[in-house]
Amino acid sequence: MIDSSTSLLQQQTHDVIRLAMGSPAHDAIPAALLRQVVGEVLERVGSAAYDYGPTEGEQSLRDALAALLNRDRSTALPDNEFLITSGGMQGLDLTCKLFVEAGDVVAVESPTYTNGLATITSYEGDLLEVPVDRDGMVVEQLAEVVARNRRPPRLIYTIPTFQNPSGTTLSLDRRMLLIDLAAQWGSVILEDDPYRLLRFEGRDVPTIQSLARGRARVVTVGTFSKVIAPGLRVGWVTGEPEIVRRMIDAKQGVDTCTNVPLQLAVAEYLCEGLLDDHLQIVRPCYRSRKYGLQEALSAHLGDMGATWTDPDGGFFLWVSLPGVDTLELFEVALRAGVAFIPGSAFSASAGFRDALRLCFASTGVDRLHEGVRRLRRAIADLCGDTRPHSPKS
Amino acid sequence: MIDSSTSLLQQQTHDVIRLAMGSPAHDAIPAALLRQVVGEVLERVGSAAYDYGPTEGEQSLRDALAALLNRDRSTALPDNEFLITSGGMQGLDLTCKLFVEAGDVVAVESPTYTNGLATITSYEGDLLEVPVDRDGMVVEQLAEVVARNRRPPRLIYTIPTFQNPSGTTLSLDRRMLLIDLAAQWGSVILEDDPYRLLRFEGRDVPTIQSLARGRARVVTVGTFSKVIAPGLRVGWVTGEPEIVRRMIDAKQGVDTCTNVPLQLAVAEYLCEGLLDDHLQIVRPCYRSRKYGLQEALSAHLGDMGATWTDPDGGFFLWVSLPGVDTLELFEVALRAGVAFIPGSAFSASAGFRDALRLCFASTGVDRLHEGVRRLRRAIADLCGDTRPHSPKS
Repeated sequence: MIDSSTSLLQQQTHDVIRLAMGSPAHDAIPAALLRQVVGEVLERVGSAAYDYGPTEGEQSLRDALAALLNRDRSTALPDNEFLITSGGMQGLDLTCKLFVEAGDVVAVESPTYTNGLATITSYEGDLLEVPVDRDGMVVEQLAEVVARNRRPPRLIYTIPTFQNPSGTTLSLDRRMLLIDLAAQWGSVILEDDPYRLLRFEGRDVPTIQSLARGRARVVTVGTFSKVIAPGLRVGWVTGEPEIVRRMIDAKQGVDTCTNVPLQLAVAEYLCEGLLDDHLQIVRPCYRSRKYGLQEALSAHLGDMGATWTDPDGGFFLWVSLPGVDTLELFEVALRAGVAFIPGSAFSASAGFRDALRLCFASTGVDRLHEGVRRLRRAIADLCGDTRPHSPKS
Repeated sequence: MIDSSTSLLQQQTHDVIRLAMGSPAHDAIPAALLRQVVGEVLERVGSAAYDYGPTEGEQSLRDALAALLNRDRSTALPDNEFLITSGGMQGLDLTCKLFVEAGDVVAVESPTYTNGLATITSYEGDLLEVPVDRDGMVVEQLAEVVARNRRPPRLIYTIPTFQNPSGTTLSLDRRMLLIDLAAQWGSVILEDDPYRLLRFEGRDVPTIQSLARGRARVVTVGTFSKVIAPGLRVGWVTGEPEIVRRMIDAKQGVDTCTNVPLQLAVAEYLCEGLLDDHLQIVRPCYRSRKYGLQEALSAHLGDMGATWTDPDGGFFLWVSLPGVDTLELFEVALRAGVAFIPGSAFSASAGFRDALRLCFASTGVDRLHEGVRRLRRAIADLCGDTRPHSPKS
């Protein structure tokens, strides 16, 4: 269904306001700086920039990444506790390759990241859906279900910070509870953490991995996709040495190594302090866009019982539209000139038919308003609403 | 064993002549042109060069690749019969992901590519080793074994052209026989074809896929690693539409897409005709290096019963050294200043203890001679030979 919708989206030639994808705004991608950095590094390194690299990642990037991660650590990240991956997606895939066998129970948030679900399903994991509320995964409910079924999860997949698609952040108390449960059950926690550096308000919550201090096995997946650019396909995984060693072995047989020129470029970008500069620019930009989108939602959908989340960072708002089938709405909205992802794409059991995900990060505030106005018009068209299309329009 | 050897190789600080790796020579990598092409394309495309791309590959690269492959085809390659991958390795991995389940018989050449074996093993395929002679895989023997065991292979993994590690090319007759057998058994043929464009003498033999004309299912894996540069991690797969579609779905959950900037750069490189220019330069260069290495082997190892292959292209010679344990030789040779890959690395059953692989492509002729001289010295040291180290030294 989403496949055909995506293809429909690609076919649309008229002006569509795209609130669907989870990419940084094109205007938030440091294209000119990246081009300069790539040019400099390729000139300096010469032909060695094009050879096979170490499967665990280029040393310059490993050093730069360790320096970045060490800012949040009391002790230096050991060399055998991380590897570079071909984007965060590869980190998810390698973790499933290591830990998910056919029939293993895998606990997932509901809603959760579509491709994360697809990867777990490709390894034939048995999905156990755990609801999400404003404090992230309802870990208490996971505990209850497992206590009833007596079949603990082999893997617990969570996006604890600015969750995709809900935008919520797992509270500190729940992180501690999750660690206790994983330790008790012998489960591995897969902490998918692509948005962490994009906090634009509120206080940092430590990663589950840092809180676990080895009490539970936690694999944490990071990426430069959301903070620099997704097309680079450069990410990383941190975990205990034995897991990292097995992951490097697995990566060897999957893609040999991550592309070398762009690893070198990311290393240079970090070393020159450009990521810090960039984050200083994009964080307030994304913050104002979040508020812009929320205002637009209040103005255009407030009278119809719609509700939405209030994330402290990341890219997404999760919007509930009681009584509206968002899968049906999708094509109507596309004709009205706005794209979103229907809620059911984030569910293993085709739930959330009355919800949708909006990305606020990649669109300016004026266009966000216009997008929501179009969304309202589409809802009115779909539901045969005869009221004025938008209360304030 | 190879792991610890690789690490030993990395620790060596003195001058080592590296005949081990299967990379193009650094002097055969068009680094300056690549840098220029990357710079041009990043300037032209701007921020879109850094966004997520289509999982099946960037359109510009797809067009350029189709034009390249169409030179050998009577009809144009249909759009739904190929995808771009993150290097050839990902093509092998995706094929195994689709077709190898635990306990499935997978026929492999013996010797064969180390990482190919590792990937098949990671999907728990049951390896059936088929010997290789000067005309490639001894397909007649595969037929006999399967006739006896009545358990046909699910997948047949072959590197038919300038095989790694042996350098041999599967004859036309055997290609036809292999297709017949695969059709009869319902087996999928995985045609790993990284060296095809590096023919420097003899006449082209068509790909198994083109010969099969749909009679058997053939997945053909290609890559720019050997003809441009491996660090780019850009390759491709051709196959029937249903296989390609499933492979694109699988790739979505594995790494989302191949890195975009270097896909665009390879497209530009092809469109500007730079690959043709480059092949004109490297083919005669590799040819003279092959003859250089063979002369050195005659001069320094000819008196001890050593034999070697005579490939018409590619990177490798396969050398047999009767009575010499090449795994033991490895460390002695490294101390003597020359690196190779011991034969057993290419065997699923630790065979070929008296063989080794030498890469002639990445080293100039003088250094090839010196490398073989050092190899002879290492053999003498290992075997306690009291004769002069090298008959002509």
